[in-house]
Amino acid sequence: MNYGVIRFIVGWTLVLEGALMIPSAAVAVIYGESAFWDFAAAIVLCLIVGAAAKYKKPAKREFFAREGCVAVALSWVALSVMGGLPFLFSGTIPDPIDALFETVSGFTTTGASILPEVESLPRSILFWRSFTHWIGGMGVLVFLLILLPMTGGFSMNIMKAESPGPSVSRLVPKVRTTAKILYSIYIGMTVIQVILLIAGRMSLFDALTLTFGTAGTGGFGTRNDSVGSFSPYHQIVITIFMILFGINFNAYYFILLGKAKNAFKMEEVRGYLAIIAAAVLAITLNIYHMYGSLAETVRHAAFQVASIITTTGYATTDFNQWPEISRTILVILMFVGACAGSTGGGIKVSRILILMKTVKKEIGQYLHPKNIKKIKMDGKSVEHEVVRSTNVFMMTYFLIFTASVLLLAFDGLDLITNFTAVATTLNNVGPGLELVGPTSNFSVYSGFSKLVMVFDMLAGRLELFPLLLLFCPETWKKF
Amino acid sequence: MNYGVIRFIVGWTLVLEGALMIPSAAVAVIYGESAFWDFAAAIVLCLIVGAAAKYKKPAKREFFAREGCVAVALSWVALSVMGGLPFLFSGTIPDPIDALFETVSGFTTTGASILPEVESLPRSILFWRSFTHWIGGMGVLVFLLILLPMTGGFSMNIMKAESPGPSVSRLVPKVRTTAKILYSIYIGMTVIQVILLIAGRMSLFDALTLTFGTAGTGGFGTRNDSVGSFSPYHQIVITIFMILFGINFNAYYFILLGKAKNAFKMEEVRGYLAIIAAAVLAITLNIYHMYGSLAETVRHAAFQVASIITTTGYATTDFNQWPEISRTILVILMFVGACAGSTGGGIKVSRILILMKTVKKEIGQYLHPKNIKKIKMDGKSVEHEVVRSTNVFMMTYFLIFTASVLLLAFDGLDLITNFTAVATTLNNVGPGLELVGPTSNFSVYSGFSKLVMVFDMLAGRLELFPLLLLFCPETWKKF
Repeated sequence: MNYGVIRFIVGWTLVLEGALMIPSAAVAVIYGESAFWDFAAAIVLCLIVGAAAKYKKPAKREFFAREGCVAVALSWVALSVMGGLPFLFSGTIPDPIDALFETVSGFTTTGASILPEVESLPRSILFWRSFTHWIGGMGVLVFLLILLPMTGGFSMNIMKAESPGPSVSRLVPKVRTTAKILYSIYIGMTVIQVILLIAGRMSLFDALTLTFGTAGTGGFGTRNDSVGSFSPYHQIVITIFMILFGINFNAYYFILLGKAKNAFKMEEVRGYLAIIAAAVLAITLNIYHMYGSLAETVRHAAFQVASIITTTGYATTDFNQWPEISRTILVILMFVGACAGSTGGGIKVSRILILMKTVKKEIGQYLHPKNIKKIKMDGKSVEHEVVRSTNVFMMTYFLIFTASVLLLAFDGLDLITNFTAVATTLNNVGPGLELVGPTSNFSVYSGFSKLVMVFDMLAGRLELFPLLLLFCPETWKKF
Repeated sequence: MNYGVIRFIVGWTLVLEGALMIPSAAVAVIYGESAFWDFAAAIVLCLIVGAAAKYKKPAKREFFAREGCVAVALSWVALSVMGGLPFLFSGTIPDPIDALFETVSGFTTTGASILPEVESLPRSILFWRSFTHWIGGMGVLVFLLILLPMTGGFSMNIMKAESPGPSVSRLVPKVRTTAKILYSIYIGMTVIQVILLIAGRMSLFDALTLTFGTAGTGGFGTRNDSVGSFSPYHQIVITIFMILFGINFNAYYFILLGKAKNAFKMEEVRGYLAIIAAAVLAITLNIYHMYGSLAETVRHAAFQVASIITTTGYATTDFNQWPEISRTILVILMFVGACAGSTGGGIKVSRILILMKTVKKEIGQYLHPKNIKKIKMDGKSVEHEVVRSTNVFMMTYFLIFTASVLLLAFDGLDLITNFTAVATTLNNVGPGLELVGPTSNFSVYSGFSKLVMVFDMLAGRLELFPLLLLFCPETWKKF
């Protein structure tokens, strides 16, 4: 293991984090909040620790997948620990485990909170909380790749470890250029959403924080009822943008290149939109009796479906009170997740498609054993390695899932709460059902359970293996 | 598809079923029950339909995996339809869907019942209900293989489709001899259990029915409180035999050959016993406060753990009332299931072991990409095809699971009931939690949901693909 280069990357990440806290400090200044000093202290600490870690340039330039994974996983841990300092310093979240949970929930774009209410918090703290979603959505190391000139294998292994999906989406041969394109699209869409929200008479502060949560598919809000008290116009804008941020960014790149046809031909995008349409239809029929008009019903159904499948986690109504079919559909959508190469979490539609095709292929193999067809996506054969790693991903996913539900059971809460708490953290959604439903929060759990969910959130965001490597003694042996 | 040979096998299966109903008819004679005439009618119908179907010998002898799967799946469907006739004719279960559910639950050794109480039923009906477990446990077609002289490829494909586990357990090169050995062990262990139960002053009727349920890992009882009102001695005997019938029968063959060492070296058997020990310990600690003495606590914990992991489904206490950790452990055990090559259901310990090794290998691959090791079981490399088909099995399993939970949600029952109802039927366990807990039954569900669970039970027993093939239009095309 090349420790030098890992230290170097973690150091750079912290320096970057310090810089990324500056806007929040500025918000504190604007609103005259004493939290400014808490941010200042956190920024100084990030810069000092980061600079110290990156001071010595790495002696060796060797960098493989393992270094990529460990560097990314450790960076995310460091990011989360230091990112919780403003909560601790300002006393808004006095408990260190709670502060860690909230920060990890922010960076991993989960949006699960331990705070019973948020409206009394300083504006700057709320801004930082939402901003962590935006940073975590596209990935902080992908951002670092733009800033730092690194060799190809180096960048590729970082990108691989931080980007979601069964195969790495490299738009252009150069990783650095890919990162630049991705962030340009990301920033562009963010700006458009902010403008649209403001156009509907929303304050700049609300528009920014809500957009950060939408863009990163996070879910932290600034009001206790999430998005419930905003106007229908705003809810519709957010619904549309949640769906847009859950689409594979390759689609937008195609559109930018003037190949919109290719974008709409992507099987994953079609599957994703079809699932959303089917879920909205089913839920609308199921909950129609609970709301006044068809328009209101569709709006609530669409918002909740978009929020859950993209793993954002905003809510406009308490879907925990919905009938069982709707609740079951939402729980299933938590697992499905958004598209690969988007900011959303979950298993990802492309993996689900690959798995369904694997099953279909297996049935075909029984019928025509001599005529075995390769699995295809978008007309191209899917590499054996992608199918294999998708399968392994799923297995690992279910093992972690089961172990987590078992560990949470020690707190004695009911099975639906535990099951959906793990589902919602491992898939980076936010709210679950029952005691962790959209009107509740995660403070019901013990510190130990919160740490289990911290693990789940990080494992979900980094797609399991980078984080698992950290807990493997073999990783830390010299070789 | 070679329809002639499939018709021939289904015909033979029904003739065999008619013969297997004779003991139940005899029980009706002994107790002077009018159900005798219902059995007589069912037997005659089985013989007529079966004889008609098998009358014409198949023209072609071609027999591949697809014919094996379809023949086995159709035989099981026919078996279940005809096996429900005594319930219908005697009026004990007047609804055809209910009768089908109960019979499928019997043959698939699930043990989930739609009957609110069983003590008022005729003895012969109870006997038949339990006997279906015994028939289904080792497999009716495996039994047919002993009776009918068939070619090697023929027998092998039948065996493959009906025997549980990731790879086919062929003890000796000849399939027919393997089937004979398996049934000899099965009958031998059944006789020993009956003798031990009678030795503890149990009536022959109770001893036989309870043993059928234990041997087949079924779970239908003859009393409303399952095994709760039998003596501790009987409960302990049943606990031990449930565990024994959940062990890979290869182990007993090793013991018969005087190679007991090999039996204890089997990784799957060790894993299985280790899981049982760990679960009993954890549950004992968790429920100690609910029972009087340590002995009683351990007895209840061991009985329930053995009952659930082997997918038998008997109960000595209402584990739905246990604290959340114990309930969660039991739900996880439902999925784990027993050993491959046993009469138990579930995912099977060997599959879990292969999956865990796959995950370990993947982590190793990150660390040492150039040094990829093969997965080993019992010191031998596991074939790539076994690993692949295990992965595909799991994926198919989760897809069917999810679809079933969604379909059951239409009845509007709570999520735990639906989730555990699917878990308990797809894994052929018997009782679930909440409304389908050990003191409840499946009559709460609609006819449609019962049919979904009939599908799940058959899919679970036949390990998914044989049954899925029946629903694939491609299967019925001419080729």
